Amino acid sequence: MSGCPYFAKRDIRHQLKDEEERDDSQDGTNKASKGGIIYGDYLQLDKVVTAQVLQSELKGNKIHDEHLFIVTHQAYELWFKQILWELDSVRDIFIRGHVRDERNMLKVNTRIHRIVMIFRLLVDQFNVLETMTALDFFDFREYLTPASGFQSLQFRLLENKIGVPDNLRVPYNRRHYRDNFRGKESELLFKSEQEPALIQLVEKWLERTPGLEENGFNFWGKLEVNITKALKMEKEKLERKPESEDKDEHMAEFNKQRDVLTSLFDEKRHDHLVSKGERRLSYKALKGALMIYFYREEPRFQVPFQLLTSLMDIDTLMTKWRYNHVCMVHRMIGSKAGTGGSSGYHYLRSTVSDRYKVFVDLFNLATFLVPRDWVPKLNPTEHPFLFTADTCGDSSYWSSSSDESD
Amino acid sequence: MSGCPYFAKRDIRHQLKDEEERDDSQDGTNKASKGGIIYGDYLQLDKVVTAQVLQSELKGNKIHDEHLFIVTHQAYELWFKQILWELDSVRDIFIRGHVRDERNMLKVNTRIHRIVMIFRLLVDQFNVLETMTALDFFDFREYLTPASGFQSLQFRLLENKIGVPDNLRVPYNRRHYRDNFRGKESELLFKSEQEPALIQLVEKWLERTPGLEENGFNFWGKLEVNITKALKMEKEKLERKPESEDKDEHMAEFNKQRDVLTSLFDEKRHDHLVSKGERRLSYKALKGALMIYFYREEPRFQVPFQLLTSLMDIDTLMTKWRYNHVCMVHRMIGSKAGTGGSSGYHYLRSTVSDRYKVFVDLFNLATFLVPRDWVPKLNPTEHPFLFTADTCGDSSYWSSSSDESD
Amino acid sequence: MSGCPYFAKRDIRHQLKDEEERDDSQDGTNKASKGGIIYGDYLQLDKVVTAQVLQSELKGNKIHDEHLFIVTHQAYELWFKQILWELDSVRDIFIRGHVRDERNMLKVNTRIHRIVMIFRLLVDQFNVLETMTALDFFDFREYLTPASGFQSLQFRLLENKIGVPDNLRVPYNRRHYRDNFRGKESELLFKSEQEPALIQLVEKWLERTPGLEENGFNFWGKLEVNITKALKMEKEKLERKPESEDKDEHMAEFNKQRDVLTSLFDEKRHDHLVSKGERRLSYKALKGALMIYFYREEPRFQVPFQLLTSLMDIDTLMTKWRYNHVCMVHRMIGSKAGTGGSSGYHYLRSTVSDRYKVFVDLFNLATFLVPRDWVPKLNPTEHPFLFTADTCGDSSYWSSSSDESD
Amino acid sequence: MSGCPYFAKRDIRHQLKDEEERDDSQDGTNKASKGGIIYGDYLQLDKVVTAQVLQSELKGNKIHDEHLFIVTHQAYELWFKQILWELDSVRDIFIRGHVRDERNMLKVNTRIHRIVMIFRLLVDQFNVLETMTALDFFDFREYLTPASGFQSLQFRLLENKIGVPDNLRVPYNRRHYRDNFRGKESELLFKSEQEPALIQLVEKWLERTPGLEENGFNFWGKLEVNITKALKMEKEKLERKPESEDKDEHMAEFNKQRDVLTSLFDEKRHDHLVSKGERRLSYKALKGALMIYFYREEPRFQVPFQLLTSLMDIDTLMTKWRYNHVCMVHRMIGSKAGTGGSSGYHYLRSTVSDRYKVFVDLFNLATFLVPRDWVPKLNPTEHPFLFTADTCGDSSYWSSSSDESD
Repeated sequence: MSGCPYFAKRDIRHQLKDEEERDDSQDGTNKASKGGIIYGDYLQLDKVVTAQVLQSELKGNKIHDEHLFIVTHQAYELWFKQILWELDSVRDIFIRGHVRDERNMLKVNTRIHRIVMIFRLLVDQFNVLETMTALDFFDFREYLTPASGFQSLQFRLLENKIGVPDNLRVPYNRRHYRDNFRGKESELLFKSEQEPALIQLVEKWLERTPGLEENGFNFWGKLEVNITKALKMEKEKLERKPESEDKDEHMAEFNKQRDVLTSLFDEKRHDHLVSKGERRLSYKALKGALMIYFYREEPRFQVPFQLLTSLMDIDTLMTKWRYNHVCMVHRMIGSKAGTGGSSGYHYLRSTVSDRYKVFVDLFNLATFLVPRDWVPKLNPTEHPFLFTADTCGDSSYWSSSSDESD
Repeated sequence: MSGCPYFAKRDIRHQLKDEEERDDSQDGTNKASKGGIIYGDYLQLDKVVTAQVLQSELKGNKIHDEHLFIVTHQAYELWFKQILWELDSVRDIFIRGHVRDERNMLKVNTRIHRIVMIFRLLVDQFNVLETMTALDFFDFREYLTPASGFQSLQFRLLENKIGVPDNLRVPYNRRHYRDNFRGKESELLFKSEQEPALIQLVEKWLERTPGLEENGFNFWGKLEVNITKALKMEKEKLERKPESEDKDEHMAEFNKQRDVLTSLFDEKRHDHLVSKGERRLSYKALKGALMIYFYREEPRFQVPFQLLTSLMDIDTLMTKWRYNHVCMVHRMIGSKAGTGGSSGYHYLRSTVSDRYKVFVDLFNLATFLVPRDWVPKLNPTEHPFLFTADTCGDSSYWSSSSDESD
Repeated sequence: MSGCPYFAKRDIRHQLKDEEERDDSQDGTNKASKGGIIYGDYLQLDKVVTAQVLQSELKGNKIHDEHLFIVTHQAYELWFKQILWELDSVRDIFIRGHVRDERNMLKVNTRIHRIVMIFRLLVDQFNVLETMTALDFFDFREYLTPASGFQSLQFRLLENKIGVPDNLRVPYNRRHYRDNFRGKESELLFKSEQEPALIQLVEKWLERTPGLEENGFNFWGKLEVNITKALKMEKEKLERKPESEDKDEHMAEFNKQRDVLTSLFDEKRHDHLVSKGERRLSYKALKGALMIYFYREEPRFQVPFQLLTSLMDIDTLMTKWRYNHVCMVHRMIGSKAGTGGSSGYHYLRSTVSDRYKVFVDLFNLATFLVPRDWVPKLNPTEHPFLFTADTCGDSSYWSSSSDESD
Repeated sequence: MSGCPYFAKRDIRHQLKDEEERDDSQDGTNKASKGGIIYGDYLQLDKVVTAQVLQSELKGNKIHDEHLFIVTHQAYELWFKQILWELDSVRDIFIRGHVRDERNMLKVNTRIHRIVMIFRLLVDQFNVLETMTALDFFDFREYLTPASGFQSLQFRLLENKIGVPDNLRVPYNRRHYRDNFRGKESELLFKSEQEPALIQLVEKWLERTPGLEENGFNFWGKLEVNITKALKMEKEKLERKPESEDKDEHMAEFNKQRDVLTSLFDEKRHDHLVSKGERRLSYKALKGALMIYFYREEPRFQVPFQLLTSLMDIDTLMTKWRYNHVCMVHRMIGSKAGTGGSSGYHYLRSTVSDRYKVFVDLFNLATFLVPRDWVPKLNPTEHPFLFTADTCGDSSYWSSSSDESD
């Protein structure tokens, strides 16, 4: 049969036969006629896709590209709503103490990770708006006054709920950011400032990190001893070297490194930096975070470590979002004032700053890393707490008597 | 002064001083209090961000992830609306003959390119929905019956307006796709099938490509002569070689290539393929497209060539979108039926097909490329039509007496 | 002082002062002159960025775009090498039994997730190559014969090491895929077929899932009992309804669902599907996977669940990669044969198939989901195994006496 | 036959039959055995995928993640090489005057657009490197000293060839950037500073924009007249209004706008800003750019306008790349010094500045937009120069006696 290509083909076809080749594509039943909710009603498309009213058209000069401007901003707001949804649910798990039942960590992590994925999309979304040129925008921007992105309630709520603090915000036209909002919106913002932000909740959680207790594993005490000893040995080794320019340099560098590491144990300095807004977490929470960093491979810390990583992702993506926003504004309006009367480009530029990085401490921890053999040894037999989770509560560190959390 | 780090620093600072360092960030005036439209009203956020009602919650079993499901689909529908906006405006420019004024080509191109950029975003958007697992989806999918993505009016309109023909659609549960729609929606779909789709408009435009006229440059006639001559020479060259297995193979390959190229001039074969749905453009339009391919660097064809490229981009991205959709569905429901009762995965799998590639002819043109020196020579002095555009109309090929186009 | 804008500005500046404003940008010391390795040598750039030799140039007809073609493929190969690096390290952890020490799960998960991120980049990378048109490619593709992507050793290794089985591969020009390789390459491929692929290692690991043991928690036994009981109750409920067309339909649907769920406990049917290549995991591994799905929120299963999700991500991205590749090839060469003589487009099209989905069983598990209250209850006090990890080994399920793992 | 599902299926299958269903997947011939170049040799994979030598391994402490670090940087360098390839070819077309033959504009545009697409990929590529944590990096970063990204020759060449000027660079550890390079590399950098950068070539090209000639269309003269007249009318309209706080405000705003627009015609001010590095283009080039902005829809300016847009894209993407780089460095090393001894984070932060935006003038043009009816009218009959391209040269503005350009 090898001489017969047709059959050869058939054989191959037969051999190829897999799930998608069996024609199941017509096996369904059509349920749409049976009553129940249908797609458009479910998504309330009568509201969502009818909400595009062009100001330029109302004013008798319809400009094609205004539609893109509206849709893009609506898409941003839709996703902001989703981020708030995830954020509130995570905050709620923390606030109600459910995180003490470590079964809820997967939920927390998944939702925080989802926020990361949404922000990744939002950063890319500028590519679409950038198909509009400055000249197209100029044609309708006068009609928008005084509407302005600074009036986005959801974005401000999002900042507050993650933990951008009022006193670190760049003033907006020398006024408080909340002055752009009225009535109920202003109240919502004020309320969101009073409620615990994600950073405060994470801070409390980090402060409870198992292993910190001084009469237990006493991570911090052990770490200080180890670092002091290691630095001393390193210094002695350096001093034994014959004098040379090279030695001087190494010594200078060693001193620098020693100062950095020693400062880690200076709680007063930490509190000073907190008071200046350069650090955000409590000293105890910092200890917890560093402990999770060092023991991230222990079963109980694997998921907490992922959480810390995702929190940095959010910070990074929010600053990237701000920066992409600045780039787009520069392109659209040059250095003119924004439609809301802001100084536009220069104002936005000033918000792309570490002042707006909420979890800046987690980044800065990279400054305090030490070689693996300086880290206090952990013996699974002696210290089983890092591979036993708490799933319901009594005496243990992270546990509590929690019920269902969502 | 080199010993004085403070001054050294100041000097560098001064030198560094650039636009963002001058503190212009507070120079704006706050216009929000002055009356006029504000952000939330402009975007009708009272409609857009209040349209998320969870069926699971209505039925007393609120499932967190349903919110993501709703928002994602709403975001898709928002962007579909934008794509339809661009598509309708481009179709309108073609329908009203405004494309004959070549000043409108930038507009056409920009808008088609914008559709490309939106589809690129939509393809990525699946990454967000995929943060929901099959198990999360299972918790609420029963509440959605019989709502289904197959009921998306806008997506069907979009397919129709680009040019997915009724007779090439994969039947949906053995029924016509329009059976999923009722009343006004069904009418809109029917209407969109009757109106000229993008492919038909592009076809008419390609048929008018300057250079095709037989009593003028006569591109097609010249091309056939050139190809026939070149093939003959190549054959003679091959035949002069001494006999060998290698020669036989080359000859076989040459014959294959010759058959392909010769078939290009067989109008009947073309029409046959069109009748089978394997080709979509008229024979004359195909000629125009190939002419634009070969002379794409001539000033008058640069923008038309970009347009053809963007049309292929749209096709490619739509099939990628379909494929990503299939992948997500496979992950969410395995091989079960969809919520609308469709056979889900297998049905969707069958739509990732070249049958749904509207501009398939533009891809297939790659099959008919020939070496540059087989392409008829074009002399700018003798044939100035490729560097002189028509911007207003009289006798010329693409011109017309057009008024404003937007 | 309020009348003095200069001071006002200074005040704001001062208030704004944050880390990036203190000019630390010049505080480093220049070490490049001190000896040691420098950037270009470290990265062996003398090899990497000198490896772009254009065949068209060698043959006296330099074509600009060939450089892009070379660089893109080299970038793919670089990343394939990185994927192999991660894959081999993960396989090694499994092979040496180190995964039994659950401290290694973070490592496994991180590396598998990194492969996901790399594939995501590779899928996007086609956007760059697609800036080359079919016409540009035509200008140099004759010089490439018979080089072809089918000769990519690393891609075949990657497929083998993940677990694309020899007997499910689509034949390539009726020949075995390994016939495209010679000498040492062919040996490497053969060896990679003999070694345990990722899927086999994951299978062994899933078979050891704690909770499956019949004389212990006995997940599978409990599940079968629960499902049987629940189906019986549902049937009785249905039967009690008055006769109607609606009832008949519900009953038909119920029967369908019952058949699906019952088939889950039919080991013979499973083995039959395995023999046909439609399922890939052993029956016991399938049980383990479903158990991880249902108890994914238990501390010990959180990371394993993430791993299963990432494995599906890899599958999905590999098929997206294949599909994007097909789209690009269609655009570049229409329906012609590839440079290596393959039937190009049609061959590639046939590999975008579930046959190449290695972890297809994980997707299909979505077919067997049941309501949460059908899942056997797990009591933390009685069944502590899901919140206690094994980090070093003796008698427990996942543990072993492991030493260093990397 | 409706009762016979098998036949019904066959019918549908038949109906579905399309190109990919005919099994052409095995129709090729295997050419690899015929001699000629094969894939691995063509791509010189023996060099490219063997160039990953881990310093940590050489020093007896192999760290898994160093491989990712190397591959990522090599991928960056590969793409930098490709960008340089495109950049040099575009610069060459400008330098040799070939751009005067407008047939070459498509080539210029396509290649500049390709650079845009590559940078888009490079910005995303950080997502892969960010799967490495600060702790993983710490394990091997000591081995890298003093290698540093500041020693990337290709990146500096790229900056120079686009047009980052020496005197606007942020000093690196108080030294000239070229001090990081030795011998031939230093020479190459010096040479690249002497050669015309892209910005200078674009400047010369803009200065030749047809329509600027004072004894011809005299765009600039006409524009000044129009703006002066329009401003005068607007002022009179404002003055006629009754006195009020509102009127004062409008007047203040009008004066601001008038000052901005008037400054446009102040050549001395322009030259002053150029001398300070805040503007980069000559006054005449600025006129040309604004002319292209205003008449972008005229056939002859459509492609030039796309070029200006792509140049802004490159600038934006380069600053995004810098910013993403900064974010990654912050995450990896906190605020420590870089491996090359740089002050790392703070240094890099200072380069994310408008000083490094080469085409900053094109962004700033958005500041000078005016309503469409202030733009001088252009009559196609009287001013045909905007729809007739020059494709070969004699007396016309952009033409020259050019031969083949690539």
